[in-house]
Amino acid sequence: MTYCVGLCLDQGLVMASDSRTNAGVDYISSYSKLHLFQPAPDRMFILLAAGNLATTQEVLNRIRRDLDQAAHPDPTLIAPATTLANVAYLFEAANYIGQINLAVQNEHGPALRAVGASVEASFILGGQIAGQPHGLFLIYPQGNHIAATPETPYLQIGESKYGKPILDHIVTPSLSLNDGARACLVSLVGTTRSNLSVGPPFEVAICPTDALAPLQRLRLEEHSPELDTMARYWNESLRQAFFQLPHFPWEQSDRTAGEPGEELQQMQG
Amino acid sequence: MTYCVGLCLDQGLVMASDSRTNAGVDYISSYSKLHLFQPAPDRMFILLAAGNLATTQEVLNRIRRDLDQAAHPDPTLIAPATTLANVAYLFEAANYIGQINLAVQNEHGPALRAVGASVEASFILGGQIAGQPHGLFLIYPQGNHIAATPETPYLQIGESKYGKPILDHIVTPSLSLNDGARACLVSLVGTTRSNLSVGPPFEVAICPTDALAPLQRLRLEEHSPELDTMARYWNESLRQAFFQLPHFPWEQSDRTAGEPGEELQQMQG
Repeated sequence: MTYCVGLCLDQGLVMASDSRTNAGVDYISSYSKLHLFQPAPDRMFILLAAGNLATTQEVLNRIRRDLDQAAHPDPTLIAPATTLANVAYLFEAANYIGQINLAVQNEHGPALRAVGASVEASFILGGQIAGQPHGLFLIYPQGNHIAATPETPYLQIGESKYGKPILDHIVTPSLSLNDGARACLVSLVGTTRSNLSVGPPFEVAICPTDALAPLQRLRLEEHSPELDTMARYWNESLRQAFFQLPHFPWEQSDRTAGEPGEELQQMQG
Repeated sequence: MTYCVGLCLDQGLVMASDSRTNAGVDYISSYSKLHLFQPAPDRMFILLAAGNLATTQEVLNRIRRDLDQAAHPDPTLIAPATTLANVAYLFEAANYIGQINLAVQNEHGPALRAVGASVEASFILGGQIAGQPHGLFLIYPQGNHIAATPETPYLQIGESKYGKPILDHIVTPSLSLNDGARACLVSLVGTTRSNLSVGPPFEVAICPTDALAPLQRLRLEEHSPELDTMARYWNESLRQAFFQLPHFPWEQSDRTAGEPGEELQQMQG
């Protein structure tokens, strides 16, 4: 499994992923799932990948081959009509990647289905083309896509449930990019704690609007001091917050050493 | 779907459930999933139920019928050998319920599988028989069961992922029963926010060791002042905790009006 999350905020994009890949529980390895494309000076794309690793790698390779063949045309081949370098709108990039995803799955699907394995892959595409707003898309295994909106400014792929509640609490479009990066890390840390198939290194890219490049890129290794510090702070803060919740009416208010919480009134017994 | 959680703490048991039942998204109704059995003065059981509602209801009815037929024997019928009133150990109660669960599923399974529906049900059984410790079991649809242990003092059934991280942060065997009840409520509230198929009223039973009865039973309705207060407090505390997390090294420390958080050192760019 995998867990990737992207935030589409007023100030720009935050893209984050874990790096764990597994085939069963007895073959666990580490692959980056955060891929940066800057195929022309007026544009930037970041692609987060989840699903069958062979599918996601071949999708990335085909995207790169199209860019290469368009940049260095071979007269004996038909150059690709669409590449990330020439799409005019972000949604066209999402459609283009969706079509490649579908083509790769169609090629390998029959052999995988025959052994009961899944060929599916999904992607989160974040990016910007100069003169247009930045945008964030979830590309389904079926090739179609949805976009993040101000009402739902984040998109997730992979093992998304454990890390969703904290995003629901924190993420609004007005969140700062740095707070957005912290929200992604907290969401990733919580998921890792609950699910073995998601794990560090965690990668985060922070892309302010109109920068057309990541302003910051983090790669936090397992047990790195930075990640351990953040996880410890979060655990302590969350426990503090929890133990200050309102009391039940039947509780004595001397439960905490500090200020007692407000009482919950009118509980039904 | 459903979300039920049980805690096996040093001081006793906490059992909690939502009450939402749905057949698709266009038929949503409300059923209690927390069931108390006190079949003899020396014992108490609480059963939390998830899965096919017809299966869980029939399992409960068969448990009650066995108790009834054992208490008022009909000479023309063979009285049930095992009931919740005569099992000698808690794990025997778990096995007994598992066998009933399996029998109900075997009876109705073929008809349901023919239309692609699931007949499966799972249960969490908490309880105590006088003279023995209290215990908590998860009964699988296949009829077997596992017990909570000091290392893993909580068990969940149904839509369990959204509400798991908060339990991992908070729940240890030494947690007080009231804090345990709050942890269950926070876990339920977070799940409800993320998943339409889980919803109030929330039911919670607090059962101290050796009381052989719930000391407190809560039923919190949707938008009740108690539930809204707790959800609001939790949301605010969690946001406060979040915004006090350590800064990234590139951030200015004037981000918050109050004390700035400690800096995360040595992030890799």
